[in-house]
Amino acid sequence: MLALEVKGVPYQSRLLSFSAGDTKTPEFLALNPRHKVPVIRDGGFVLNESLAILVYLDQKFANVPLFGRSAEDAGLVWRAISEFQSYLHPALNADVVRPIYQGKVEEQRAQIEAQMHVVHEELAKYEAALGHQSWLVGNALSAADLVVFPHFMSLLRAATRPAAAGLKLGILPLEQVYPQIAAWQKRIEALPGYDKTFPPHWR
Amino acid sequence: MLALEVKGVPYQSRLLSFSAGDTKTPEFLALNPRHKVPVIRDGGFVLNESLAILVYLDQKFANVPLFGRSAEDAGLVWRAISEFQSYLHPALNADVVRPIYQGKVEEQRAQIEAQMHVVHEELAKYEAALGHQSWLVGNALSAADLVVFPHFMSLLRAATRPAAAGLKLGILPLEQVYPQIAAWQKRIEALPGYDKTFPPHWR
Repeated sequence: MLALEVKGVPYQSRLLSFSAGDTKTPEFLALNPRHKVPVIRDGGFVLNESLAILVYLDQKFANVPLFGRSAEDAGLVWRAISEFQSYLHPALNADVVRPIYQGKVEEQRAQIEAQMHVVHEELAKYEAALGHQSWLVGNALSAADLVVFPHFMSLLRAATRPAAAGLKLGILPLEQVYPQIAAWQKRIEALPGYDKTFPPHWR
Repeated sequence: MLALEVKGVPYQSRLLSFSAGDTKTPEFLALNPRHKVPVIRDGGFVLNESLAILVYLDQKFANVPLFGRSAEDAGLVWRAISEFQSYLHPALNADVVRPIYQGKVEEQRAQIEAQMHVVHEELAKYEAALGHQSWLVGNALSAADLVVFPHFMSLLRAATRPAAAGLKLGILPLEQVYPQIAAWQKRIEALPGYDKTFPPHWR
């Protein structure tokens, strides 16, 4: 949705509820048999998988390029996305955020705090890079920012949950721990249309 | 390497040995501090992460497009890659192939055989698709084929190891279990330059 906003492409979003079974209706399964979001429909073309959707949107609406303007830029954007998926995402999501959301902090405290070392190693690389550039890859917003940002926000959200109160996450206050990442977060939040992409149940 | 071969791009490959520490030398760490392969150097441009390298090569040498010729094609190729990474790859690699290579079949037999159900679910989708098309995405070789193929070959290699003799993998003989996938394997093996890309220690 943020890619659509920054490109100024009109779209209609649908709010689905996992717990209400909205992704398992026949209508939704016809769009994505794997019953996962996101899915887009553009005329008769239907596509699932978030990276595939970003690529499709970027080629269809090229006014604001999200994968760079050269082969080198594209390589660097995809390197950032792949490294996020290989290193930061597994630690951040499966090992830290999910146990907090699922109320399993007590059972998994040691594992959560151990995996936060991996998270901090990766965040330290972002902090260093953002010290001399505005976005994760160079000085233009790219798909890498859009891929990483929601997961980063999910980490912040988990860190402020009551369930996380006793955990040593070492992420807050963000402005003190990672001032450059905090500034990057503010730049993303200042993007046109950002408010429309914020998950309503996160407010 | 197979992408370079099908595009007809001349290159020099370097055979590295993990066990000899070739990926931890200062020279290699200067190319990729994460000490992982693959890495390419093209003039002064250095890039790691296999998907990033495929994108870079595809944009630099566009004679044989590996990500389709339209936004829709690109979306479908990336969907196939993302679905491979999300569903088939974790089950195939971490839960089946790795324990066999590491000689942990006895301890992990139940887990291996359980995860083979996931592997077969995904292979059945390929088998069905390859019944009416030549390649994983439509009728042109794409990056999806090049991403999936080495992991598929690794599964076959693991399945024929002595350590796997007692395992119920249900993958062999491939021509009987998955005849369309077997034909796809032969099409890949018939690509120009294929032999040069085959890992020497796999022979």
